[in-house]
Amino acid sequence: GSITETSDAQAEPGKYKYIESTVTDGLRVIKFNRPAKKNAFLKESYDEVVAALKEAADDPATVVTVTTGAGDFYSSGNDLSNFTAIKGDIKEIAKESGVLLNRFVSAFIDFPKPLVAVVNGPAIGVSVTVMGLYDAVYASDRATFHTPFSNLGQSPEGCSSYTFPRIMGPGKAAEMLLFNKKLTAQEAERVGLVTEVLPADTFQQEVMARLQKHAQLPVKSLVYSKALTRDLETKILHEVNDRECDRLVERWTSDDCVNAIMKFFAAKSKM
Amino acid sequence: GSITETSDAQAEPGKYKYIESTVTDGLRVIKFNRPAKKNAFLKESYDEVVAALKEAADDPATVVTVTTGAGDFYSSGNDLSNFTAIKGDIKEIAKESGVLLNRFVSAFIDFPKPLVAVVNGPAIGVSVTVMGLYDAVYASDRATFHTPFSNLGQSPEGCSSYTFPRIMGPGKAAEMLLFNKKLTAQEAERVGLVTEVLPADTFQQEVMARLQKHAQLPVKSLVYSKALTRDLETKILHEVNDRECDRLVERWTSDDCVNAIMKFFAAKSKM
Amino acid sequence: GSITETSDAQAEPGKYKYIESTVTDGLRVIKFNRPAKKNAFLKESYDEVVAALKEAADDPATVVTVTTGAGDFYSSGNDLSNFTAIKGDIKEIAKESGVLLNRFVSAFIDFPKPLVAVVNGPAIGVSVTVMGLYDAVYASDRATFHTPFSNLGQSPEGCSSYTFPRIMGPGKAAEMLLFNKKLTAQEAERVGLVTEVLPADTFQQEVMARLQKHAQLPVKSLVYSKALTRDLETKILHEVNDRECDRLVERWTSDDCVNAIMKFFAAKSKM
Repeated sequence: GSITETSDAQAEPGKYKYIESTVTDGLRVIKFNRPAKKNAFLKESYDEVVAALKEAADDPATVVTVTTGAGDFYSSGNDLSNFTAIKGDIKEIAKESGVLLNRFVSAFIDFPKPLVAVVNGPAIGVSVTVMGLYDAVYASDRATFHTPFSNLGQSPEGCSSYTFPRIMGPGKAAEMLLFNKKLTAQEAERVGLVTEVLPADTFQQEVMARLQKHAQLPVKSLVYSKALTRDLETKILHEVNDRECDRLVERWTSDDCVNAIMKFFAAKSKM
Repeated sequence: GSITETSDAQAEPGKYKYIESTVTDGLRVIKFNRPAKKNAFLKESYDEVVAALKEAADDPATVVTVTTGAGDFYSSGNDLSNFTAIKGDIKEIAKESGVLLNRFVSAFIDFPKPLVAVVNGPAIGVSVTVMGLYDAVYASDRATFHTPFSNLGQSPEGCSSYTFPRIMGPGKAAEMLLFNKKLTAQEAERVGLVTEVLPADTFQQEVMARLQKHAQLPVKSLVYSKALTRDLETKILHEVNDRECDRLVERWTSDDCVNAIMKFFAAKSKM
Repeated sequence: GSITETSDAQAEPGKYKYIESTVTDGLRVIKFNRPAKKNAFLKESYDEVVAALKEAADDPATVVTVTTGAGDFYSSGNDLSNFTAIKGDIKEIAKESGVLLNRFVSAFIDFPKPLVAVVNGPAIGVSVTVMGLYDAVYASDRATFHTPFSNLGQSPEGCSSYTFPRIMGPGKAAEMLLFNKKLTAQEAERVGLVTEVLPADTFQQEVMARLQKHAQLPVKSLVYSKALTRDLETKILHEVNDRECDRLVERWTSDDCVNAIMKFFAAKSKM
């Protein structure tokens, strides 16, 4: 649960453990709220975000929806401890994780109202890849964008294999998705992944004020306009999501991935 | 009818009321010509543009076709007085307006020769949204680009719900199509909507000289090359046009839109 | 055949006449090697590139593949003397040239591993148009990009009629593909055709060092990730390739093209 700084925000305390979800005068804010772990997603986090998006979609009082991070990070993506916590058949677990991821990404594909990322700091992995499914991405100049898949023997998700080449061109997309390049906020803006970069000092106030204004627009015009820009691709995006998740289920059980993750934890344990 | 500054320009006087259409040495110029009303489109204007595009397509002497505006504006888009002039059943009128708009946008989708916008000043609404169907857009540095749909309870047309996200990425497209952001010429160039910005002082001369040169190229190579870049999408674009017009027919009769337009005229009558 | 500066490079001497193909520690370099003729492609060059791409695809020791040019040019594209060498029925020869070009472009569409252009100098025609099928394009600041099709009465190939509008937007694509505009490396970077521009002095060392590092990544993750970004479009790209080649077969026998090429050689013989 949560208390936000705005007095008329509504939240049901205790509803979520790893996120907060509040709505103020038309603007719904979903905050990744595990700052001690850089807002890394545990399995429960995925399902909580899915539930919060459903809540925002169904709530007549929600016009514009934002995701943002508590503390210095936006999100460090999938918590790699999800892999070490594995007990039982690795193939079975990989399959279950694929179903979980598929459901998470589907919630973004199908979200019917304007969805805006307010990227307060570094963003990694799946928290970046789904950004191609947002309607706008505002970033603090302290934000970074990193999808180190091939380093970890993995492959892209969040429909980024489809959205990134279309947003930034094949070259810039390959640098991120194949060659693990980390972008600054300014670089991410130049390639079109980020809509606008704002100074960190006044970032939250400035962006939230702007979005609060957008949240006063006629919701039907926003929903119908978004549907026009998205509906033609919905079917393709679900196919892409399926293909990406299938490939990851294979990758997660591959030697490439298992060795890379073992190296990651070995290096970490030495620090 | 019209007289242009070039001596060999051909125009049939009296053929059009709200536009001019002249051809000079391969270059056809269609000028929106209602400067006292910022070149806003009346119902007749739509049909005149459709006729002029058909004339340009059929004319063997036309190689490259330009649209531009008389006076300081490019075009302020749909003349909102089209709505107040309504007598009779509003639903019937909305349906007819949808058919008119559909025909107008179809003429751009199907235009077979190079089509270039020479944006001499502010451009609003449908004059902006069809720019995604042009082959190039040159803008004076005094031009602006504005599509305030949701402010008016409306939704995108001109295939912009399809072309804008593909040209400028989903974020910049959403700022224009959902959140009513007005772009400067420089901003429009950075997101790819404008091909090049030139200084207002020498804009017309410089651009027209360049296009006059292009109009000497082999027309068949231009037509066939354009067909290669466009034919794969023609069917999709007509579907998009249909969906956008259907949605607008619904929007025009909605409370959101009726209230917004009443507010607009109330504010205007106080000025 | 070839000797490269790296001691452990492997090449079969005498295998190719107009290109070199060597592999060093995971990085395959295919070098267009006809510097006295600005690396223009003869008929044999097309088939040699196809063979070298097949070799790179099949070779387990090849992770990342590069194309680059010997000397000051990247490639001046199709050697126009391919046209003057014609003996026999011009329509039959045009048809055969279409088949050759189709096979060449198909090899790029179907190439399964990361493919990077290292553009050391000016690039013209088909050497530019296939760049939309690469995963990254690094350019020296002395490189230029030119596709003068309509000047020669021809039309686009290399799937550029599909990839260029999607990468750079319709306006910038039309300037290149319809209006023969030559881009500097910096301009090509701004429109997304080039991934990054580097200073000519240190270009080869800097880019090759970077790619050598990428060539250490797990090849399966790279191949599967590339497949995710490309497979959805493979069928469309082959259709585009077919349509482009059919159109060129018609164009090559047209008066527009024959006259333009006669003018080219007449001007050359006067120099």
